[in-house]
This record gives sequence, C-alpha cells and structure tokens, in this order.
Amino acid sequence: MNNREMPNWLDKRASLTPKRVCLTDGAVVWTFEDLNQYAQATARKLHGREIGRGDRVAVLLGNSFRVPQIIYALQYLDAITVLLNNRLAPAELGWQLKDAGCKLLIYDDEFLGTVAAITADIPRLGVLSYAAMEQLPGADVLLERRIDLDAVHTVIYTSGTTGRPKGVMLTNENHWWSATGSVLNLGLQMTDQWLICVPMFHMSGLSIILRSVIYGIPVLIQRKFIPAAVNEAIRDEGVTMVSVVSSMLAQMLENLGQDGYPDSFRCMLVGGGPVPAILLQECRKKQIPVYQTYGLTETASQLVTLSPEYMDSKLGSAGKALFPAEIKIEGDGGGRKPGEVGEIVVRGPTVTPGYLNIANEKLDIFRDGWFHTGDLGYIDEEGFLYVLDRRSDLIISGGENVYPAEIEAVLNAHPAIAEAGVTGVKHEQWGQVPVAFIKINEQSAVTEEEVRLFCRERLAHYKCPTRVYFVEKLPRNAANKLLRRKLAELIR
Amino acid sequence: MNNREMPNWLDKRASLTPKRVCLTDGAVVWTFEDLNQYAQATARKLHGREIGRGDRVAVLLGNSFRVPQIIYALQYLDAITVLLNNRLAPAELGWQLKDAGCKLLIYDDEFLGTVAAITADIPRLGVLSYAAMEQLPGADVLLERRIDLDAVHTVIYTSGTTGRPKGVMLTNENHWWSATGSVLNLGLQMTDQWLICVPMFHMSGLSIILRSVIYGIPVLIQRKFIPAAVNEAIRDEGVTMVSVVSSMLAQMLENLGQDGYPDSFRCMLVGGGPVPAILLQECRKKQIPVYQTYGLTETASQLVTLSPEYMDSKLGSAGKALFPAEIKIEGDGGGRKPGEVGEIVVRGPTVTPGYLNIANEKLDIFRDGWFHTGDLGYIDEEGFLYVLDRRSDLIISGGENVYPAEIEAVLNAHPAIAEAGVTGVKHEQWGQVPVAFIKINEQSAVTEEEVRLFCRERLAHYKCPTRVYFVEKLPRNAANKLLRRKLAELIR
Repeated sequence: MNNREMPNWLDKRASLTPKRVCLTDGAVVWTFEDLNQYAQATARKLHGREIGRGDRVAVLLGNSFRVPQIIYALQYLDAITVLLNNRLAPAELGWQLKDAGCKLLIYDDEFLGTVAAITADIPRLGVLSYAAMEQLPGADVLLERRIDLDAVHTVIYTSGTTGRPKGVMLTNENHWWSATGSVLNLGLQMTDQWLICVPMFHMSGLSIILRSVIYGIPVLIQRKFIPAAVNEAIRDEGVTMVSVVSSMLAQMLENLGQDGYPDSFRCMLVGGGPVPAILLQECRKKQIPVYQTYGLTETASQLVTLSPEYMDSKLGSAGKALFPAEIKIEGDGGGRKPGEVGEIVVRGPTVTPGYLNIANEKLDIFRDGWFHTGDLGYIDEEGFLYVLDRRSDLIISGGENVYPAEIEAVLNAHPAIAEAGVTGVKHEQWGQVPVAFIKINEQSAVTEEEVRLFCRERLAHYKCPTRVYFVEKLPRNAANKLLRRKLAELIR
Repeated sequence: MNNREMPNWLDKRASLTPKRVCLTDGAVVWTFEDLNQYAQATARKLHGREIGRGDRVAVLLGNSFRVPQIIYALQYLDAITVLLNNRLAPAELGWQLKDAGCKLLIYDDEFLGTVAAITADIPRLGVLSYAAMEQLPGADVLLERRIDLDAVHTVIYTSGTTGRPKGVMLTNENHWWSATGSVLNLGLQMTDQWLICVPMFHMSGLSIILRSVIYGIPVLIQRKFIPAAVNEAIRDEGVTMVSVVSSMLAQMLENLGQDGYPDSFRCMLVGGGPVPAILLQECRKKQIPVYQTYGLTETASQLVTLSPEYMDSKLGSAGKALFPAEIKIEGDGGGRKPGEVGEIVVRGPTVTPGYLNIANEKLDIFRDGWFHTGDLGYIDEEGFLYVLDRRSDLIISGGENVYPAEIEAVLNAHPAIAEAGVTGVKHEQWGQVPVAFIKINEQSAVTEEEVRLFCRERLAHYKCPTRVYFVEKLPRNAANKLLRRKLAELIR
C-alpha cells in the first residue's frame, strides 16, 4: 500500500463518532456528522465551480462554522485553502491572492467592500460570497476518502513581525503530526472542549479546528476575543482548554479579578511570544494551568511546550520540543552551549516544506534539514528552551544585546501600565538605545520619570529605556502579536 | 530533511519527562530516566558483542523490567528484537531462531534448560544469560538518537491458531501509528497507569511497553496472570487500564464476586477474539468500562476498537477501524454488503510489511494493498465490525456455516461451565458437525444430556453439539487463545 496516504480526517471522524458535538457557538450546535454533511455538500458545490485537486481557494471569513465547513470541503477535493487575514487592507490581500494564484475567493458579506476593492485588480479571480455559495447546486464528484500526507492542505501568509509576507505551505502530514505531537503532551479526555477566541485564519486557530476532528472533541467558537466572554465560557460552559497569547491572558486575569477557574479547566495554552514573569506568577497564585508554548506558522503551531510537571520549576521556559520535533541553538559558526543565546533552529515532521513561489535555496533558513526560525533563545543545562525575542527585534546598544521582551516584562509589571512595547532607535554614541511605548490603565496616572525610575531599579543601566512614549494603542498584528518594528513609526 | 526519521522514542521521553514513573512491579520502580540509563548501558554492552544495525537478537524472558530494557537497548543500536514465546518447546524455539537468523539469544536463567536444548542444534548462535550480559563491559558506540520509521523494530512469530508460525516483521512506523491511533480513541490522562498481565512477548504486551514510553505513562508489571492480583492492582494501586482476553476477564469477574472497580479504572481492553455476550452483560451490570477490540500481531495490536459511547448500543461489536486504518469485508469474488459475512480485510500504516523469509507474493494475503486476515466477520449497516471466528475454525454442516464462537458463547453462559471450546468433526451425512469440550466449575456437576438440552433451547438444531466432552483443561496458546484445531486431539 501507499504509506503516504491515510483516511480523510473528517470522513473518518464522522464515521467513528458521528453524534459527538464538533462545533458550537453557544447557540447552534453541529455534530461531526453535521459538519461532514455540510462539508461534503460544499465540496460538491465547489466542484461545480471547477475546483479540484491542487486548486487554491482563498477564504476571507470571520470566526464561524463556515471556516471548518469550507476547509474540510476543500480537503475532500484535495484542493488547498488559502487563509486570508480579514484585518488586512485590500492591497495586502490582493497581493496574497495574486501570489497564491487563487482560483476562487469565498467571503463573508461583511467583507464585501474589501472584496470589491480587491477584485477590480485581479480580473481572473472568481469570487463567491458564502451566501451565494450556499445557493449553488451540488455537482457529481467522487470525494477524496483518502488524503495524501504530502499534499499541501493550507497556505497561510506569515503575519510575521518583519518583512514581506510569505505564503507558508502546510501539508496534511505537517498538521497530522502537530495534532498527535500535541496530544502526547497535553493528553486527551472525553470531557475536553477547546475554546477558539484567536483568529481561525491563523495557525493557532486553525490547529484547534484540525485537532477537533482528529481528536473527536468539541470546539466552542467565539467570534472575537472578549476577556469576560472567555472567562464565562471557562466557568459555565465546560471549556477545558483555551489558546491565547500573553496580552490576552493579561486581560483575562484582569477581568477575572479575585475569582479563579474551575478545576475542570485544564489547559491555558499560551503562545505567540515570551510571557512576562509577573503574569506567570499571578497564574501560579491562582493555580491556572498555564502551558507555555513556542511555535510558528512554519511549524504548524506548537513545536515546544512545557510539560505540566515543570510549570513551577521552569517558570518562563517554553519547555522541550514535542515528541516528533527537535530543537537546537545556533550561533555564529556553530552550535551553542547550554545557556548561550543564539538562533532557535528546528526540525521535524511539522516543519513546512517551504514557501509558495520561493525556492528554499533562495532563503537562508532551510539548511541541512533544519529550519532557522529567526528567533533568539537559549537552552538551559537541563534542555529547556527559553525564547528571548525575534532576532530582528534585538537591540544592540554599546555592543550589549538588549532584548525588548525583557524590558517589556518589567514595564508590564508596573501597576499603572496596561501594555508596553520596546524598540531600538539610533543613537550616535551607543549605536542603538531602547525606547518604550506604554499604554496606561484606565484611571491610572504615571509620569515618564516615574517609569524610568521603575526600570532603573530593576534593569541594568544600558537596558533602561532612554525615552518613554505614552500611546493609546500599541501596533499589533491580527494575531495580537506586538509589531515592534512599527513602534518607531509612532514617534512623530 | 528525511521525513522517514524521528527522534528515538526513549531518548525523547527521558528528555521530556525523566522523573515520571515508567515501570514498576509493586516493589522496584524505574523512572523513564532509569530505563533510559539501563537501556543505553545495555546497548553499549551488546555493541561489545558486535550487535549493530539490522542484527536480530532473540529474547527468552518472563514479564519483567528486562524486556523493555533490552528492547530499547536494541532500538538504540537499530537492531531487531525477536520476541520468543517462553512457553514453546525447544524444537519450536530452535526453528524460530534459525528462521530469524538470530545472532544472539538473551535469556532468563529459569529458561537455561530450554536454551541448552536449543543451542546444541544451532552452533553459530551466541547465547547470553541476562546475568552474564549485565557483567559485560560497555563498548564505545554512537547510540541512534534518531530512528528510521521504515526499519524493522520487532519480529514476533504468530502464535496463530493454525499453520506453521511465521515471523511477523513490525517496523518503527507500525508501532508508532498503533500507539497514536489508540490514544485518539482511548484518550490519555496524567493519572493513567497500564497493567501488563499478558505476555510481553506477544503484541498485546509489547504494545503496552511501547505506549508507556510514547505516552509517558507508568506500567505495572505482573509476571503472571493471577485474577486476584489484577483485581487488587485495579482496586489499590491506581491502575486505570488493563489489556486482557475474554477468558481472563471471566476469571477476574469470578474473583471480583459482588465487588466492583473504582471509578478511576477507565479501560478494560478486551482482545484476542469475540467476547461472549453474557460476559459483556455482566460487565455492563458492574459498570466496567469494557473496550472490545480486534487486532492481530500483523497489525501491531489494536486495529478496531469500539468507541466508548457505543459500549451499550453496540454490545458485541469490536467497533470501527482506528483513525489511520480501514477495514472491509470480502467474500467470494468481491465486497460484501452490510450484514453479510466474509473475510475481514484491512489496510493502514500499522499493517506489517510482511513475514520474514516469505515473499508477500507467495502468500495470498497481501492483495492490492489490503491485508487479508483470515478472520470472518461482518460490518453492520452503521459500519460496526462484528468478528465471528477464524475462517479456518468455521464448521460447515449440511451447507450451513456454524461458528464455534457462537456455540461457545452459549456454553459459557451455563452456570456449571467454566470454559468451553467447539470444533467440527467429520460426519457422513452433514460433512461436519460441531462437538463441544467443556471444563466444569469446581463444585459443579452437569451431565452431557443437560448440556445438550441447554444448547437446544438456545441454538438452531444444526448448531447444537452432537457430543459434549468433559475435559480438565482446554488447549490454549501462550496468549491464552483457545486452539480449536487441537480440540479434536482430545478425543481418544
């Protein structure tokens, strides 16, 4: 037999446990059987629009049942889903649609204006609102009951914090190993329910939709991230697992106040960058089961996650590479010893085969089977990874490495500061110096001098921000990740 | 990178969760770090005996820590473990050692007599008692930190109920997919502990040793199957999962009497053939979480398992194929409709690439990527598999198919009968007729006429045993499976 194939995931799941709940938004409930019927019907409709093997179909949707419906429909046709970030400007989306050579764009009506602006520019792109798609007749087609592990399942443009977006190709195999690698660390219980409040067009959201079907567990969909709504779902709706980034966690804790979570809540998966120590300590006090994780779109989500028994003793670490993966730290001209900072380099079956339309050889990031992440970190004596920062965000001041994340963690610990971002600006004497951008809590007040004093008490002199700018809002990407390279633009 | 490799399982597990308990026998406890140290030390000793990549090393051991120690040592050398059944006669073992071309045999002292009888006949085989192996100096060797998914991990000779034993080759990939396929059905909890009371030289026992390392959960080893000891471990030692065959389950229930199991006990995995309905009903009454399963050595254990939500409504079914696997029923000249009996045919990444020294083409069991199991069963309208019997055990009486397992299930329901076996004997008029062999419960009494009457009230006339033989013991193989083909030999 061809060992590079396996049964179609949704077809299999709907056969194994048709009556289990798959998706709910609190009002509507779909079982796996329901999702399968909708996905199959959708596949037939899209086949009528001549979508088939290898075709790229973009989706511009909010968080809803529609996303899994279409993703699984396209898997039945062996077509590729291009997940568009609905927060991008038309020009950015247009560029991605062209780069991906999309045949069709399916969109929610709310994005009609954006779509109109895009399509003027791409005459050969078919467009279809979700509502119009639902009206299409189904065509006769043999649905793919088996999937090719090597086939590309998804293209996601990096919401990277630097550079031009690149279309990350993720295969069925990447996603499968990601789901199984995760379950061997986090476990799987009949009572599990995962909440999605991150965008489904990002890897963190997509991975939940895929795990739902592979594991046979329900997903509670929230359209937007509202801290109180997430807390309520954990408290009252039986949610056992949530994926967030640290700024979301901070807001949830603020909303939580003196309350805690029920014992049934077993996993707060926190990715998207280092988590400030103060936040971790607060979670520890509240006995919130935080799993720090490190992963990239290019690694189909989680790659490194801290095992539960190390939550206390390795506070701040992202943990060790999940079962199928390996990591190491590389510096100039070779590997780094324990404790030495360098670039995080990874390999394993969840790593993307590459980017759309860019030969791997042209990029200096796939070398000898290892993927070079561009992130800085170190591995301690016991093998635990500590992620410091994006290499591109590193500030070099007077020859010293200064990590914005470290300074931000100190700033975030100030009671008056809601959010902080740090970047480097040019300096005649030191090359670069750090400057800070802060958003103040409502009903709080603080001066620049007070903030600088707070830092001087907690940081080496060369790490202290030379200026502190007060802002209304920090620049973040759609995944809520801080865009440090855009901070400097805030200075007029 | 080479996607056909992954990190060495034990190396990875010992890195991820070194301090978790891996093995215990109630007295001694090994963590994953311990097992890793023993396995690595053993690998170095065996390397000194010139064991390396692809070499076949046989082990003749009882259930103990030694089995995983050596299996994982050999995986570090990319050598192949040949698991010998310690209940076989020297001649049978000798045949297997020669067939497998073993370079070395490692044995427990208790099997010294057997080994002496074997080795006289195989001059080029190295032999090493476990104790002697422990005295060897370690040699310098680069241990395999990565494993090749396509490499053969184990050879297990089929304890098949018919024919000459064949050496089933099982690859790293077979075992990996078996472990991940199982976890997606049974789940995985931090509190899990699996009890081994089946032989480690069989697939059912081996699979537990492999899952332990892949999942990071402890295994409680029992040297022999003693019903009271298993029940005690479930009650007092925190065992959450046990693998048994139905005759073992029956003995455990008898020992249990009016008691039940604690709620923490979550999985009684029952394989090795159909389970009598009466036994399932008793388990249901006692709320014992029985998972019926169907698998073969050739499928690296579990292939089909009933999902928990169908335990009641699909009583008697083995369930549906686990995530990566597919099953179908074939009859003469094609597929069978739902409900029609035929041969169970399977495919998936857990299926063996073949048998040692036998080209797949010579066997009529690998066809178009499907493995033909030789077992009879049917799939109902909803896709659930019901396993009836080995095809070779089928009795054809007056043109009617008679399944020994069905008659045995009726006999097992008789209060005076402890165990029953049915086979066909030649008959002038009907071709074959069923005859029964029964073992009576202690302090019970029953006559042949009473037993035949009991059957006549419950079975079609042509299914009723024409004779009932009273025996002390039924012939079973080392996995405790009834050997029906040996029943007829009991008739003098």
